[in-house]
Amino acid sequence: MSETWHGGAAAVVTLTFDVDAETPILAQGRDYARHASTMSHQAYGPDVGLPRILDLLDELGVPATFFVPGWVAEHRLGLAGSIVERGHEVAHHSYGHRPPTSMTPQEERADFVRALEVFADQGIEIAGHRAALWEASWQTARLVAEYGLLYDSSLMGDDRPYRISAGSGEIVELPAHWSLDDWEQYAYLPAPHIGSVIESPAKVLELWRAELDGMRHYRCLFNLCVHPFLSGRPGRAQALRRFIEYALTCGDVRFARCRDVAEAAAADPEIATRPHREPVVDPGVYPV
Amino acid sequence: MSETWHGGAAAVVTLTFDVDAETPILAQGRDYARHASTMSHQAYGPDVGLPRILDLLDELGVPATFFVPGWVAEHRLGLAGSIVERGHEVAHHSYGHRPPTSMTPQEERADFVRALEVFADQGIEIAGHRAALWEASWQTARLVAEYGLLYDSSLMGDDRPYRISAGSGEIVELPAHWSLDDWEQYAYLPAPHIGSVIESPAKVLELWRAELDGMRHYRCLFNLCVHPFLSGRPGRAQALRRFIEYALTCGDVRFARCRDVAEAAAADPEIATRPHREPVVDPGVYPV
Amino acid sequence: MSETWHGGAAAVVTLTFDVDAETPILAQGRDYARHASTMSHQAYGPDVGLPRILDLLDELGVPATFFVPGWVAEHRLGLAGSIVERGHEVAHHSYGHRPPTSMTPQEERADFVRALEVFADQGIEIAGHRAALWEASWQTARLVAEYGLLYDSSLMGDDRPYRISAGSGEIVELPAHWSLDDWEQYAYLPAPHIGSVIESPAKVLELWRAELDGMRHYRCLFNLCVHPFLSGRPGRAQALRRFIEYALTCGDVRFARCRDVAEAAAADPEIATRPHREPVVDPGVYPV
Amino acid sequence: MSETWHGGAAAVVTLTFDVDAETPILAQGRDYARHASTMSHQAYGPDVGLPRILDLLDELGVPATFFVPGWVAEHRLGLAGSIVERGHEVAHHSYGHRPPTSMTPQEERADFVRALEVFADQGIEIAGHRAALWEASWQTARLVAEYGLLYDSSLMGDDRPYRISAGSGEIVELPAHWSLDDWEQYAYLPAPHIGSVIESPAKVLELWRAELDGMRHYRCLFNLCVHPFLSGRPGRAQALRRFIEYALTCGDVRFARCRDVAEAAAADPEIATRPHREPVVDPGVYPV
Repeated sequence: MSETWHGGAAAVVTLTFDVDAETPILAQGRDYARHASTMSHQAYGPDVGLPRILDLLDELGVPATFFVPGWVAEHRLGLAGSIVERGHEVAHHSYGHRPPTSMTPQEERADFVRALEVFADQGIEIAGHRAALWEASWQTARLVAEYGLLYDSSLMGDDRPYRISAGSGEIVELPAHWSLDDWEQYAYLPAPHIGSVIESPAKVLELWRAELDGMRHYRCLFNLCVHPFLSGRPGRAQALRRFIEYALTCGDVRFARCRDVAEAAAADPEIATRPHREPVVDPGVYPV
Repeated sequence: MSETWHGGAAAVVTLTFDVDAETPILAQGRDYARHASTMSHQAYGPDVGLPRILDLLDELGVPATFFVPGWVAEHRLGLAGSIVERGHEVAHHSYGHRPPTSMTPQEERADFVRALEVFADQGIEIAGHRAALWEASWQTARLVAEYGLLYDSSLMGDDRPYRISAGSGEIVELPAHWSLDDWEQYAYLPAPHIGSVIESPAKVLELWRAELDGMRHYRCLFNLCVHPFLSGRPGRAQALRRFIEYALTCGDVRFARCRDVAEAAAADPEIATRPHREPVVDPGVYPV
Repeated sequence: MSETWHGGAAAVVTLTFDVDAETPILAQGRDYARHASTMSHQAYGPDVGLPRILDLLDELGVPATFFVPGWVAEHRLGLAGSIVERGHEVAHHSYGHRPPTSMTPQEERADFVRALEVFADQGIEIAGHRAALWEASWQTARLVAEYGLLYDSSLMGDDRPYRISAGSGEIVELPAHWSLDDWEQYAYLPAPHIGSVIESPAKVLELWRAELDGMRHYRCLFNLCVHPFLSGRPGRAQALRRFIEYALTCGDVRFARCRDVAEAAAADPEIATRPHREPVVDPGVYPV
Repeated sequence: MSETWHGGAAAVVTLTFDVDAETPILAQGRDYARHASTMSHQAYGPDVGLPRILDLLDELGVPATFFVPGWVAEHRLGLAGSIVERGHEVAHHSYGHRPPTSMTPQEERADFVRALEVFADQGIEIAGHRAALWEASWQTARLVAEYGLLYDSSLMGDDRPYRISAGSGEIVELPAHWSLDDWEQYAYLPAPHIGSVIESPAKVLELWRAELDGMRHYRCLFNLCVHPFLSGRPGRAQALRRFIEYALTCGDVRFARCRDVAEAAAADPEIATRPHREPVVDPGVYPV
């Protein structure tokens, strides 16, 4: 069984935490740095949510992957290293959390490399990447391959790992999806205006359990995306705890770091290869 | 009983799948083709969601109708034919998924005809039409009649099939409604910005069951609209499965393809004829 | 007990139906008349939803009030009269459903009078008024008093009937509130863009029951606002049925037409008189 | 135990009521004063919601804190004093409810001082402050310290009280969070456009109970923010009652006024000191 990406499990859970701190807000306008409440709302993530989540993972004995923007690793020295010391993976989540689709190719490359340099300086070995806002350009995967990373986790073309050809080589895609992101459920800010109604942890737990059950039926990758500034809050942390406890009691669910899934997938000859190229669009059909 | 549109059932369910793939996004701006994550999110529909749904329909033994934009049938050769081979109906869902209300009459006609040509080239016989975004113009039904189709499914003037006079002839309308569309429940994208909070499959199942029960009370057409890129996801596919299983256990619900309902309705002298004409609006009352 | 506005009941329910048809859409832009699907979505209200609701009220034996824009009464001759024949009240809901706050005082007056003329022509006696979108100006109540109506139902200053001084006289206000309006729960249209997620009838029933129970505790007016184009849909009509059935089984809830509550309130010396005047705002405090 | 901020309780509940009345609407544009319905919707808060809530607190025997804009205290003479007479705390909630981030430093200072003068004139002793919209600037905490107040409640950097250095001194922060604010759950207005779907009190009660349970696990400050114009409505007032009753039955939850928690926190050497300074943002990373 060990040659398959799933190792015989009905579903594989990768718990991933996007430790964004202030970056997604500053990426919407650097003037938001003047907003003390908003900045404190974001600082809660690394300062309060992250240690709480690390303790929770210890208690439950499950591994996880933390996608950290280079800016955050640089401005909070020791953060990335302390995650690795607890047995988890740190992965590349851009430098400044600006979405690749909002940058020129040159800007995207510079941002990508700058983050790699931060992690290299801190002795953090990086195996994978996730684009800010899951807004990859077609260049993004090529950068992932060019810089020797094993996997990307920004696309949504399947719910199982798949291979894509990306310029100089092939990489593994660990696909994500908005329905397994706590942002759409919990995020709310007045400026920049984000979110609408705030959901209860009970609803989110119901959603995640239903998706896990569906994925156990279809043998999928449950690639959960959680933000410490959101799910680090007490009631939500307890919902996350209950979700993990539920998955553990299923008996057929495996928890793994993204890099471990990617390595297994890279060695699995049966995972799909999916096309990865920009659609050719006729301006006569779509004039604008 | 066979002379009535419902064949004696308390409610008739038409499972319809809008196989939109990339088209609704490109219709909002062709520049979104540069967004690799968004394009992969849409490609999931035909690539992963559609085969999963076809298998589900096989398992449960129920027929369905697939509304396919001409652009999708053209860019994914074999897709439309494979649906017909599984015993389902393929119907006209525009060429490029641009809403008729956003086009000139000439553009709408050209788009309408181009899709017919694609299906003719592929040997797919078309009996019905649904406007992109359910945003028909007053010309839309006239095109449906002029090109000899039997039915349209873009209006919302009843919850039972009805007749409308449309230029050169009369067609059957199989009305739809936003409350039976999975888009408003599940869709979320940051760019183009679509959706707000993402609902759980449990809520959607509750909504659909309540509406089916109401429709069984009033003898209606339960015209469900599902998108493979949304409801093809594992937890949602399981909710769809549970909905179909529930309807099957009711004992008084009939499943049918749209063309079969339209044929029965066309032969049923008791279905209503509803007016189909643009309201005359006094600029003195509505100045803008 | 008969001298009190509530007649001894723990709560009084006024079931009100805003028979808006196409008007709220045309008020957002007369060009929407070109949108065939949207117009059919609105026509469903008077054509399908209204008869269904009238039958439901007959079955359950409860009276109701129908707020009808003059434009609708004029364009669908016989509609208003048929409501009165079934024992219900027809009330003034503007002529064209443009909110008073969006019109000049002269435009508001002309719109107000034109609707009165339509009802007078049809022999419909009018006792009360509700502003389009519950967006009254300060002039609105003065028009209600000037033209001899008994009550208004556009303000939200209490949850029990109250008196306001309005120019030439005093009128009764039967206050409403957004939480007892089906629009925010159910309405969805892409153009004009209205609504976000669509709620399930089960949630709406839960909301209404909770509010009724709260109002029974505090002896309030449960002034429910329902739109036939929304709650006329089968699953929602069944939720409305269940709500009425629940209220009937409470044993301490009274159903009444608005005019009957207003008459009782006008004769009740203990109802509150609330101030009704525009706040004086210092431009130094609120510069824009 | 009395030296700790929590006094040995598993969680401390501060019930806080933002008595905003018309101010948050006028802060979005003084022209909204012309909207009679909207103004009545806001007046409901002090006129109906507030007395109902004061009675509820009496019944249940729990203390609370009322954040009152100076404009409201000035325009409704006696309001602030009557709250203090019932044993509760009145605190500073700006003068006009304009967010500090939308004002110049001079404007913010003038607004801050003007509210202090209103309360001084009315003999109301003020110990704490909450920024309008929880949109503090970095100056806000310095003003709180400069004018000798004990605490601020505008930031979100923790879920337990913490110390911040603010110019001339140190103050206690009693952090808040959007998930414990009834605004995002209940608020809806068409103009200014506020809110989307309106949640049921059952959902809000579920959310608050889940958060309280999480906070009891992690020993936190449950700093609930309720608006009388929203939660004063009957069904919502009952949900608030049920929440308080639930917390009382837990046996390990303490209710306190903000000033009492702040005093205990100021004397507790173990509460955290958190940095309070504007992030330095490189325009090369965040160009706009």
